[in-house]
Amino acid sequence: MLSPSLKGLNMKIPIVKKVLEANDRIAEENRRIFETMGTLVINLMSGPGAGKTTLLEKTIQALNSQYRLAVIEGDIQSTSDAERIASTGVPVVQINTGGACHLDANMVREALEQLDLKTLDILLVENVGNLVCPAEFNVGEDYKVMLLSVAEGDDKPIKYPLIFHESSLLLINKTDLLPYVDCSIRKIRKESLKINPNLEIFEISCKTGDGLTHWFTWLSGKRKQK
Amino acid sequence: MLSPSLKGLNMKIPIVKKVLEANDRIAEENRRIFETMGTLVINLMSGPGAGKTTLLEKTIQALNSQYRLAVIEGDIQSTSDAERIASTGVPVVQINTGGACHLDANMVREALEQLDLKTLDILLVENVGNLVCPAEFNVGEDYKVMLLSVAEGDDKPIKYPLIFHESSLLLINKTDLLPYVDCSIRKIRKESLKINPNLEIFEISCKTGDGLTHWFTWLSGKRKQK
Repeated sequence: MLSPSLKGLNMKIPIVKKVLEANDRIAEENRRIFETMGTLVINLMSGPGAGKTTLLEKTIQALNSQYRLAVIEGDIQSTSDAERIASTGVPVVQINTGGACHLDANMVREALEQLDLKTLDILLVENVGNLVCPAEFNVGEDYKVMLLSVAEGDDKPIKYPLIFHESSLLLINKTDLLPYVDCSIRKIRKESLKINPNLEIFEISCKTGDGLTHWFTWLSGKRKQK
Repeated sequence: MLSPSLKGLNMKIPIVKKVLEANDRIAEENRRIFETMGTLVINLMSGPGAGKTTLLEKTIQALNSQYRLAVIEGDIQSTSDAERIASTGVPVVQINTGGACHLDANMVREALEQLDLKTLDILLVENVGNLVCPAEFNVGEDYKVMLLSVAEGDDKPIKYPLIFHESSLLLINKTDLLPYVDCSIRKIRKESLKINPNLEIFEISCKTGDGLTHWFTWLSGKRKQK
């Protein structure tokens, strides 16, 4: 988001608020489209390198034979993540945000034109790697799901509370690294639940596969009636 | 930064450009102040949990007896990092950005009021944990220095090129985790140097201390005449 200390310069309107309101209006339209089409939409958020794309690869491997999946890939630039997803065979649309540090509802709306929602059970939207702004911009998703790598440390809920507040599910990833990093899962759980008592939390390792069945079951259980 | 797909809504001025221009003007004033005072200023940037605060703690331990140091701590909210720095005994000023995902020149200007620059050799500014927007906002620093944790993976230069382009020095941190993660230092070096051929790169582990003397020497060598 804009810098609060700069945003008033030469401007007479409260810009940040207007932008968020405009975004929410489009997000609401997206949400109605997803409802009508019966497509479950997940907005997957994390800091850089927490394992979002690997989680998507594992999810596609596990669920692609049962459900019709698609992915929207959000990146500042580059198509490397979208190429990884494309190699799994599921439909993927790349959004390059052109410098913006998050996806917004309008970007997702434009990406929808490339997808046949009627045929999709689950649409997974991978946001830009960032623990701040993605949490402010609804894209019309049914659930926000966040990943946190144990290598990032256990102080993240205290430092980035909004994303923990907005998420329905927290996946604590890279638990295989726990013996080698200073990170207390107990502290993450405690601080996250202080911010958001309804947050569900699973511990996973995309590398070893540990805990992933909880995520697959959670995701399957949220599907909509077609 | 603002979403490109939303920023034109209901607005008649190119806001993002105006904000960056206003920021650069204040940054230039900050730079002149730092020159006059003979204070070296480092803008330290990374994604969340890459080890910025730990690096500062180690730097203070190593250099505090030789040089007069101070720290500006940038966070969305919370004072946990500033408390860690305060316990080392060096002057620290906390900036809470109130939701903004980066520091800007005006925030740093306000923080300067709490510091006696004339008495300082080196001012270390810890930016908000984010690989995107901090790279767009100069604060008047002499050098941008970025940290990257090997746990974040080796695709970060391709995905977040601006921060690699803007930095003078890249510290590849947490090399103690290399046996346990899929990360090629060679690939990070190659892709980073494609983006920024002048980038200096050191491999470090704040945990074991490996490589830190390179950073201490680099930093000492950049000091200004008082």
